[in-house]
Amino acid sequence: MIPIVCIVGTSNVGKTTFIEKLLPELTGRGYRVGTVKHDVHGFEMDREGKDTWRHRQAGAQAIAISSPVQMALIRSTSGEIPLDELVSRLFWTEDLVLAEGFKRLHFPKIEVFRANMSEKPLCGPGDNLMALVSDDAVPGLDGTPRFGCDDAGLVADLIEDRFLRGRKQPKIAVHLDGHKLPLNDFVADFVRGGICGMLSTLRGWSPPRQLDIHIRLEEDA
Amino acid sequence: MIPIVCIVGTSNVGKTTFIEKLLPELTGRGYRVGTVKHDVHGFEMDREGKDTWRHRQAGAQAIAISSPVQMALIRSTSGEIPLDELVSRLFWTEDLVLAEGFKRLHFPKIEVFRANMSEKPLCGPGDNLMALVSDDAVPGLDGTPRFGCDDAGLVADLIEDRFLRGRKQPKIAVHLDGHKLPLNDFVADFVRGGICGMLSTLRGWSPPRQLDIHIRLEEDA
Repeated sequence: MIPIVCIVGTSNVGKTTFIEKLLPELTGRGYRVGTVKHDVHGFEMDREGKDTWRHRQAGAQAIAISSPVQMALIRSTSGEIPLDELVSRLFWTEDLVLAEGFKRLHFPKIEVFRANMSEKPLCGPGDNLMALVSDDAVPGLDGTPRFGCDDAGLVADLIEDRFLRGRKQPKIAVHLDGHKLPLNDFVADFVRGGICGMLSTLRGWSPPRQLDIHIRLEEDA
Repeated sequence: MIPIVCIVGTSNVGKTTFIEKLLPELTGRGYRVGTVKHDVHGFEMDREGKDTWRHRQAGAQAIAISSPVQMALIRSTSGEIPLDELVSRLFWTEDLVLAEGFKRLHFPKIEVFRANMSEKPLCGPGDNLMALVSDDAVPGLDGTPRFGCDDAGLVADLIEDRFLRGRKQPKIAVHLDGHKLPLNDFVADFVRGGICGMLSTLRGWSPPRQLDIHIRLEEDA
Protein backbone atom coordinates (compact mmCIF):
# COMPACT_ATOMS: atom_id res chain seq x y z
CA MET A 1 0.00 0.00 0.00
CA ILE A 2 2.67 2.52 1.03
CA PRO A 3 5.68 2.76 -1.32
CA ILE A 4 8.86 1.29 0.18
CA VAL A 5 12.36 2.39 -0.89
CA CYS A 6 15.36 0.51 0.53
CA ILE A 7 18.57 2.42 1.26
CA VAL A 8 21.29 -0.20 0.89
CA GLY A 9 25.08 -0.38 1.04
CA THR A 10 27.87 -2.13 2.89
CA SER A 11 28.13 -1.78 6.64
CA ASN A 12 29.25 1.70 7.79
CA VAL A 13 29.16 3.16 4.27
CA GLY A 14 26.89 6.00 5.43
CA LYS A 15 23.32 4.77 4.93
CA THR A 16 21.99 6.42 8.10
CA THR A 17 23.85 9.64 7.31
CA PHE A 18 22.24 9.75 3.88
CA ILE A 19 18.79 9.01 5.34
CA GLU A 20 19.34 11.93 7.73
CA LYS A 21 19.80 14.18 4.72
CA LEU A 22 16.94 12.69 2.71
CA LEU A 23 14.28 12.81 5.45
CA PRO A 24 14.09 16.60 5.86
CA GLU A 25 13.99 16.99 2.05
CA LEU A 26 10.87 14.81 1.96
CA THR A 27 9.13 15.97 5.13
CA GLY A 28 9.85 19.59 4.10
CA ARG A 29 7.68 18.94 1.02
CA GLY A 30 4.82 17.88 3.27
CA TYR A 31 5.18 14.11 3.02
CA ARG A 32 4.86 11.87 6.05
CA VAL A 33 7.75 9.45 6.08
CA GLY A 34 8.32 6.33 8.16
CA THR A 35 11.56 4.37 8.41
CA VAL A 36 12.41 0.74 9.04
CA LYS A 37 15.74 -0.35 10.44
CA HIS A 38 16.86 -3.91 10.02
CA ASP A 39 18.66 -5.27 13.02
CA VAL A 40 20.22 -8.69 12.75
CA HIS A 41 21.72 -8.67 16.22
CA GLY A 42 18.54 -8.15 18.21
CA PHE A 43 18.12 -4.74 19.77
CA GLU A 44 17.32 -3.49 23.20
CA MET A 45 14.44 -1.05 23.44
CA ASP A 46 13.49 -1.13 27.06
CA ARG A 47 15.85 -0.96 29.99
CA GLU A 48 16.29 -3.40 32.81
CA GLY A 49 14.02 -2.54 35.69
CA LYS A 50 11.61 -0.31 33.74
CA ASP A 51 7.95 -1.30 33.89
CA THR A 52 7.85 -2.30 30.23
CA TRP A 53 10.93 -4.50 30.73
CA ARG A 54 9.22 -6.11 33.73
CA HIS A 55 6.06 -6.81 31.66
CA ARG A 56 8.20 -8.48 29.04
CA GLN A 57 10.21 -10.56 31.50
CA ALA A 58 6.94 -11.73 33.03
CA GLY A 59 5.73 -13.05 29.67
CA ALA A 60 3.87 -10.29 27.82
CA GLN A 61 4.11 -11.03 24.11
CA ALA A 62 3.64 -7.42 23.04
CA ILE A 63 3.99 -4.25 25.07
CA ALA A 64 2.70 -0.84 24.05
CA ILE A 65 3.43 2.49 25.69
CA SER A 66 1.13 5.41 25.16
CA SER A 67 1.78 9.07 25.89
CA PRO A 68 0.36 12.36 24.61
CA VAL A 69 3.22 12.87 22.14
CA GLN A 70 4.27 9.38 21.08
CA MET A 71 3.47 5.71 21.24
CA ALA A 72 5.66 2.67 21.09
CA LEU A 73 5.35 -1.07 20.69
CA ILE A 74 7.73 -3.94 21.37
CA ARG A 75 6.62 -7.37 20.13
CA SER A 76 8.32 -10.76 20.41
CA THR A 77 8.24 -12.66 17.14
CA SER A 78 9.05 -16.22 16.13
CA GLY A 79 11.11 -15.26 13.10
CA GLU A 80 11.46 -12.06 11.17
CA ILE A 81 8.22 -10.55 9.89
CA PRO A 82 8.38 -9.93 6.10
CA LEU A 83 8.95 -6.24 5.30
CA ASP A 84 5.69 -5.80 3.39
CA GLU A 85 3.70 -7.30 6.27
CA LEU A 86 5.56 -5.14 8.79
CA VAL A 87 4.79 -2.02 6.77
CA SER A 88 1.12 -2.93 6.29
CA ARG A 89 0.74 -3.54 10.05
CA LEU A 90 2.65 -0.60 11.46
CA PHE A 91 2.43 2.30 9.02
CA TRP A 92 -1.06 3.56 8.50
CA THR A 93 -0.71 7.29 7.88
CA GLU A 94 2.61 7.52 6.04
CA ASP A 95 3.13 8.46 2.38
CA LEU A 96 6.48 6.66 2.05
CA VAL A 97 8.65 4.22 3.97
CA LEU A 98 12.46 4.34 3.78
CA ALA A 99 13.95 1.00 4.82
CA GLU A 100 17.60 0.88 5.85
CA GLY A 101 19.10 -2.38 4.63
CA PHE A 102 17.00 -5.26 3.25
CA LYS A 103 19.24 -5.46 0.20
CA ARG A 104 18.04 -8.94 -0.75
CA LEU A 105 14.39 -7.89 -1.16
CA HIS A 106 12.79 -6.88 -4.45
CA PHE A 107 11.81 -3.31 -3.43
CA PRO A 108 13.24 -0.29 -5.30
CA LYS A 109 16.68 0.55 -3.91
CA ILE A 110 19.07 3.43 -3.52
CA GLU A 111 22.64 2.31 -2.86
CA VAL A 112 25.22 4.35 -0.97
CA PHE A 113 28.71 3.49 -2.25
CA ARG A 114 32.24 4.45 -1.22
CA ALA A 115 35.13 3.26 -3.34
CA ASN A 116 37.42 2.94 -0.31
CA MET A 117 35.03 0.46 1.30
CA SER A 118 34.28 -1.96 -1.53
CA GLU A 119 35.35 -2.60 -5.10
CA LYS A 120 31.93 -2.32 -6.64
CA PRO A 121 28.31 -1.67 -5.64
CA LEU A 122 26.25 -4.41 -4.00
CA CYS A 123 23.48 -4.02 -6.56
CA GLY A 124 23.77 -5.12 -10.14
CA PRO A 125 21.34 -5.42 -13.05
CA GLY A 126 18.04 -6.91 -11.96
CA ASP A 127 18.35 -5.60 -8.40
CA ASN A 128 15.78 -2.82 -8.89
CA LEU A 129 18.34 -0.08 -8.26
CA MET A 130 16.87 3.42 -8.74
CA ALA A 131 19.99 5.44 -7.99
CA LEU A 132 23.54 5.28 -6.69
CA VAL A 133 24.72 7.79 -4.12
CA SER A 134 28.47 8.24 -4.17
CA ASP A 135 31.14 10.92 -4.35
CA ASP A 136 33.47 8.45 -6.10
CA ALA A 137 33.67 7.06 -9.59
CA VAL A 138 31.47 3.97 -9.67
CA PRO A 139 32.49 0.94 -11.74
CA GLY A 140 29.84 -0.71 -13.89
CA LEU A 141 27.25 2.04 -13.40
CA ASP A 142 25.28 0.95 -16.44
CA GLY A 143 22.88 3.86 -16.87
CA THR A 144 21.71 4.02 -13.26
CA PRO A 145 21.51 7.67 -12.16
CA ARG A 146 24.32 8.68 -9.78
CA PHE A 147 24.10 11.45 -7.19
CA GLY A 148 26.66 12.91 -4.80
CA CYS A 149 26.33 12.34 -1.04
CA ASP A 150 25.07 15.91 -0.61
CA ASP A 151 22.49 15.63 -3.41
CA ALA A 152 19.67 14.52 -1.10
CA GLY A 153 17.38 17.13 -2.71
CA LEU A 154 17.86 15.57 -6.15
CA VAL A 155 17.27 12.08 -4.78
CA ALA A 156 14.10 13.38 -3.11
CA ASP A 157 13.03 14.74 -6.55
CA LEU A 158 13.49 11.27 -8.01
CA ILE A 159 11.48 9.59 -5.23
CA GLU A 160 8.79 12.25 -5.47
CA ASP A 161 8.48 11.86 -9.25
CA ARG A 162 8.34 8.12 -9.10
CA PHE A 163 6.20 7.49 -6.02
CA LEU A 164 4.62 10.59 -4.56
CA ARG A 165 3.68 13.38 -6.97
CA GLY A 166 0.14 13.15 -8.25
CA ARG A 167 -0.20 9.90 -6.40
CA LYS A 168 -3.74 9.26 -5.39
CA GLN A 169 -3.97 7.56 -2.04
CA PRO A 170 -5.32 4.11 -2.85
CA LYS A 171 -8.88 4.01 -1.61
CA ILE A 172 -8.81 0.37 -0.63
CA ALA A 173 -6.12 -2.13 0.27
CA VAL A 174 -6.79 -5.82 0.89
CA HIS A 175 -4.18 -7.99 2.62
CA LEU A 176 -4.35 -11.78 2.76
CA ASP A 177 -2.17 -12.89 5.67
CA GLY A 178 -0.26 -9.64 5.36
CA HIS A 179 0.29 -9.85 1.60
CA LYS A 180 -1.41 -7.39 -0.67
CA LEU A 181 -4.09 -8.57 -3.10
CA PRO A 182 -3.61 -6.78 -6.43
CA LEU A 183 -6.72 -4.82 -7.45
CA ASN A 184 -7.22 -2.75 -10.57
CA ASP A 185 -9.10 0.55 -10.28
CA PHE A 186 -12.41 -0.86 -11.47
CA VAL A 187 -12.36 -3.82 -9.12
CA ALA A 188 -11.10 -1.64 -6.22
CA ASP A 189 -14.05 0.74 -6.68
CA PHE A 190 -16.49 -2.16 -6.97
CA VAL A 191 -15.25 -3.89 -3.82
CA ARG A 192 -15.07 -0.63 -1.87
CA GLY A 193 -18.58 0.35 -2.93
CA GLY A 194 -19.94 -3.10 -2.13
CA ILE A 195 -18.44 -3.17 1.35
CA CYS A 196 -19.42 0.40 2.24
CA GLY A 197 -22.92 -0.13 0.86
CA MET A 198 -23.39 -3.25 2.97
CA LEU A 199 -22.03 -1.66 6.16
CA SER A 200 -23.80 1.67 5.75
CA THR A 201 -27.18 0.01 6.37
CA LEU A 202 -26.11 -1.10 9.86
CA ARG A 203 -26.89 0.57 13.17
CA GLY A 204 -23.86 2.39 14.50
CA TRP A 205 -22.56 3.33 11.06
CA SER A 206 -21.60 6.89 10.42
CA PRO A 207 -19.37 7.70 7.46
CA PRO A 208 -15.79 7.40 8.73
CA ARG A 209 -12.62 8.81 7.24
CA GLN A 210 -11.09 5.38 7.49
CA LEU A 211 -12.53 1.89 7.72
CA ASP A 212 -10.59 -1.17 8.88
CA ILE A 213 -11.97 -4.67 8.62
CA HIS A 214 -10.26 -7.73 10.09
CA ILE A 215 -11.59 -11.17 9.19
CA ARG A 216 -10.41 -14.52 10.50
CA LEU A 217 -11.01 -17.45 8.21
CA GLU A 218 -9.16 -20.20 10.03
CA GLU A 219 -11.15 -22.37 12.39
CA ASP A 220 -10.18 -22.18 16.03
CA ALA A 221 -7.76 -24.87 17.17
CA MET B 1 -11.97 -6.96 19.51
CA ILE B 2 -9.44 -8.11 22.13
CA PRO B 3 -10.67 -7.90 25.74
CA ILE B 4 -8.95 -5.14 27.73
CA VAL B 5 -8.59 -5.23 31.54
CA CYS B 6 -7.12 -2.17 33.27
CA ILE B 7 -4.96 -2.66 36.36
CA VAL B 8 -5.44 0.53 38.33
CA GLY B 9 -4.33 1.98 41.67
CA THR B 10 -2.50 4.95 43.10
CA SER B 11 1.07 5.64 42.07
CA ASN B 12 3.58 3.11 43.48
CA VAL B 13 0.87 0.91 45.01
CA GLY B 14 2.26 -2.17 43.24
CA LYS B 15 0.43 -2.35 39.89
CA THR B 16 3.48 -3.53 37.93
CA THR B 17 4.37 -6.04 40.66
CA PHE B 18 0.87 -7.50 40.47
CA ILE B 19 1.00 -7.62 36.64
CA GLU B 20 4.30 -9.52 36.98
CA LYS B 21 2.47 -12.16 39.01
CA LEU B 22 -0.62 -12.23 36.80
CA LEU B 23 1.15 -12.56 33.43
CA PRO B 24 2.75 -16.00 34.01
CA GLU B 25 -0.57 -17.30 35.38
CA LEU B 26 -2.25 -16.37 32.09
CA THR B 27 0.53 -17.26 29.65
CA GLY B 28 1.02 -20.56 31.51
CA ARG B 29 -2.55 -21.43 30.52
CA GLY B 30 -1.68 -20.87 26.87
CA TYR B 31 -3.06 -17.36 26.41
CA ARG B 32 -1.17 -14.69 24.50
CA VAL B 33 -1.19 -11.52 26.53
CA GLY B 34 -0.21 -7.99 25.56
CA THR B 35 0.23 -5.07 27.92
CA VAL B 36 -0.18 -1.32 27.61
CA LYS B 37 1.61 1.11 29.86
CA HIS B 38 0.33 4.64 30.17
CA ASP B 39 3.06 7.21 30.37
CA VAL B 40 2.10 10.79 31.08
CA HIS B 41 5.64 12.10 31.19
CA GLY B 42 6.75 11.06 27.72
CA PHE B 43 9.18 8.16 27.56
CA GLU B 44 12.48 7.59 25.90
CA MET B 45 12.72 4.44 23.82
CA ASP B 46 15.69 5.06 21.61
CA ARG B 47 19.03 6.41 22.73
CA GLU B 48 20.88 9.43 21.51
CA GLY B 49 23.16 8.57 18.64
CA LYS B 50 21.49 5.26 17.72
CA ASP B 51 20.30 4.95 14.11
CA THR B 52 16.62 4.97 15.12
CA TRP B 53 17.19 8.12 17.17
CA ARG B 54 18.89 9.72 14.18
CA HIS B 55 15.93 8.81 11.91
CA ARG B 56 13.60 10.44 14.39
CA GLN B 57 15.67 13.59 14.80
CA ALA B 58 15.76 13.90 11.02
CA GLY B 59 11.97 13.90 10.84
CA ALA B 60 10.71 10.33 10.47
CA GLN B 61 7.17 10.24 11.84
CA ALA B 62 7.28 6.53 12.67
CA ILE B 63 10.27 4.23 13.02
CA ALA B 64 10.14 0.45 13.04
CA ILE B 65 12.94 -1.96 13.91
CA SER B 66 12.81 -5.52 12.73
CA SER B 67 14.89 -8.45 13.93
CA PRO B 68 14.45 -12.24 13.89
CA VAL B 69 13.17 -12.32 17.48
CA GLN B 70 11.36 -9.04 17.97
CA MET B 71 10.05 -5.94 16.32
CA ALA B 72 9.47 -2.45 17.63
CA LEU B 73 7.77 0.75 16.59
CA ILE B 74 8.05 4.33 17.80
CA ARG B 75 5.51 6.79 16.43
CA SER B 76 5.06 10.51 17.06
CA THR B 77 1.44 11.45 17.72
CA SER B 78 -0.42 14.72 17.96
CA GLY B 79 -2.28 13.80 21.14
CA GLU B 80 -2.84 10.55 22.95
CA ILE B 81 -4.37 7.77 20.85
CA PRO B 82 -7.53 6.35 22.50
CA LEU B 83 -6.85 2.99 24.18
CA ASP B 84 -9.31 1.04 22.03
CA GLU B 85 -7.76 2.42 18.84
CA LEU B 86 -4.25 1.69 20.13
CA VAL B 87 -5.24 -1.90 20.88
CA SER B 88 -6.98 -2.40 17.54
CA ARG B 89 -3.90 -1.08 15.69
CA LEU B 90 -1.12 -2.79 17.59
CA PHE B 91 -2.40 -6.08 18.99
CA TRP B 92 -3.40 -8.53 16.31
CA THR B 93 -2.58 -11.97 17.73
CA GLU B 94 -3.27 -11.48 21.45
CA ASP B 95 -6.11 -13.05 23.47
CA LEU B 96 -6.10 -10.39 26.18
CA VAL B 97 -4.60 -6.96 26.86
CA LEU B 98 -3.71 -5.84 30.39
CA ALA B 99 -3.49 -2.06 30.58
CA GLU B 100 -1.61 -0.49 33.48
CA GLY B 101 -3.39 2.68 34.50
CA PHE B 102 -6.18 4.29 32.42
CA LYS B 103 -8.38 4.48 35.51
CA ARG B 104 -10.74 7.02 33.94
CA LEU B 105 -11.76 4.76 31.04
CA HIS B 106 -14.80 2.49 31.01
CA PHE B 107 -12.95 -0.82 30.62
CA PRO B 108 -13.23 -3.54 33.29
CA LYS B 109 -10.76 -2.84 36.10
CA ILE B 110 -8.79 -4.57 38.79
CA GLU B 111 -7.61 -2.20 41.51
CA VAL B 112 -4.52 -2.75 43.63
CA PHE B 113 -5.01 -1.10 47.04
CA ARG B 114 -2.80 -0.54 50.09
CA ALA B 115 -4.33 0.99 53.20
CA ASN B 116 -1.08 2.77 54.08
CA MET B 117 -1.12 4.61 50.75
CA SER B 118 -4.68 5.88 50.53
CA GLU B 119 -7.81 5.97 52.62
CA LYS B 120 -10.05 4.21 50.17
CA PRO B 121 -9.91 2.64 46.70
CA LEU B 122 -9.92 4.84 43.60
CA CYS B 123 -12.85 2.95 42.09
CA GLY B 124 -16.36 3.19 43.39
CA PRO B 125 -19.74 1.98 42.18
CA GLY B 126 -20.16 2.47 38.44
CA ASP B 127 -16.43 2.23 37.75
CA ASN B 128 -16.64 -1.28 36.27
CA LEU B 129 -14.44 -2.75 39.01
CA MET B 130 -14.09 -6.56 38.68
CA ALA B 131 -11.89 -7.18 41.71
CA LEU B 132 -9.81 -5.52 44.40
CA VAL B 133 -6.33 -6.81 45.13
CA SER B 134 -5.21 -5.98 48.63
CA ASP B 135 -3.75 -7.57 51.74
CA ASP B 136 -5.51 -4.97 53.88
CA ALA B 137 -9.05 -4.45 55.02
CA VAL B 138 -10.78 -2.39 52.33
CA PRO B 139 -13.39 0.21 53.28
CA GLY B 140 -16.61 0.30 51.28
CA LEU B 141 -15.94 -2.96 49.41
CA ASP B 142 -19.59 -3.34 48.48
CA GLY B 143 -19.65 -6.90 47.12
CA THR B 144 -16.64 -6.57 44.79
CA PRO B 145 -14.47 -9.71 45.09
CA ARG B 146 -11.22 -9.12 47.01
CA PHE B 147 -8.02 -11.09 46.53
CA GLY B 148 -4.68 -10.98 48.31
CA CYS B 149 -1.57 -9.69 46.55
CA ASP B 150 -0.33 -13.26 46.09
CA ASP B 151 -3.63 -14.54 44.70
CA ALA B 152 -2.71 -13.91 41.06
CA GLY B 153 -3.90 -17.43 40.20
CA LEU B 154 -7.39 -16.68 41.50
CA VAL B 155 -7.50 -13.37 39.65
CA ALA B 156 -6.42 -15.22 36.49
CA ASP B 157 -9.34 -17.63 37.08
CA LEU B 158 -11.71 -14.66 37.21
CA ILE B 159 -10.31 -13.13 34.00
CA GLU B 160 -10.37 -16.50 32.28
CA ASP B 161 -13.99 -17.16 33.26
CA ARG B 162 -15.15 -13.75 32.21
CA PHE B 163 -13.17 -13.17 29.02
CA LEU B 164 -11.24 -16.16 27.78
CA ARG B 165 -12.70 -19.59 28.44
CA GLY B 166 -14.90 -20.88 25.67
CA ARG B 167 -14.42 -17.58 23.92
CA LYS B 168 -14.73 -17.90 20.22
CA GLN B 169 -12.39 -15.56 18.40
CA PRO B 170 -14.68 -13.06 16.69
CA LYS B 171 -14.60 -13.82 13.00
CA ILE B 172 -14.91 -10.23 11.86
CA ALA B 173 -14.19 -6.83 13.38
CA VAL B 174 -15.03 -3.55 11.69
CA HIS B 175 -13.48 -0.30 12.92
CA LEU B 176 -14.65 3.14 11.82
CA ASP B 177 -11.80 5.58 12.48
CA GLY B 178 -10.47 3.16 15.08
CA HIS B 179 -13.80 2.65 16.88
CA LYS B 180 -15.48 -0.72 16.73
CA LEU B 181 -18.80 -1.07 14.93
CA PRO B 182 -21.09 -3.33 16.99
CA LEU B 183 -22.22 -6.40 15.00
CA ASN B 184 -24.48 -9.20 16.16
CA ASP B 185 -23.64 -12.77 15.13
CA PHE B 186 -26.08 -12.86 12.23
CA VAL B 187 -24.91 -9.57 10.74
CA ALA B 188 -21.26 -10.47 11.34
CA ASP B 189 -21.68 -13.73 9.41
CA PHE B 190 -23.57 -11.96 6.63
CA VAL B 191 -20.95 -9.21 6.19
CA ARG B 192 -18.05 -11.67 6.42
CA GLY B 193 -19.67 -13.99 3.87
CA GLY B 194 -20.46 -11.10 1.55
CA ILE B 195 -16.93 -9.71 1.62
CA CYS B 196 -15.21 -13.07 1.25
CA GLY B 197 -17.60 -14.10 -1.52
CA MET B 198 -16.85 -10.91 -3.46
CA LEU B 199 -13.07 -11.15 -3.00
CA SER B 200 -12.83 -14.89 -3.66
CA THR B 201 -13.75 -14.36 -7.31
CA LEU B 202 -10.66 -12.18 -7.88
CA ARG B 203 -7.34 -13.18 -9.38
CA GLY B 204 -4.70 -13.53 -6.72
CA TRP B 205 -7.14 -14.74 -4.07
CA SER B 206 -6.27 -17.84 -2.12
CA PRO B 207 -8.08 -18.53 1.14
CA PRO B 208 -6.03 -16.78 3.85
CA ARG B 209 -6.06 -17.34 7.58
CA GLN B 210 -6.56 -13.65 8.05
CA LEU B 211 -7.90 -10.89 5.86
CA ASP B 212 -7.33 -7.18 6.48
CA ILE B 213 -9.10 -4.48 4.50
CA HIS B 214 -8.32 -0.79 4.80
CA ILE B 215 -10.62 1.70 3.10
CA ARG B 216 -10.23 5.48 2.92
CA LEU B 217 -13.41 7.41 2.51
CA GLU B 218 -12.22 10.97 2.86
CA GLU B 219 -11.32 12.81 -0.28
CA ASP B 220 -7.70 13.78 -0.65
CA ALA B 221 -6.87 17.26 0.51
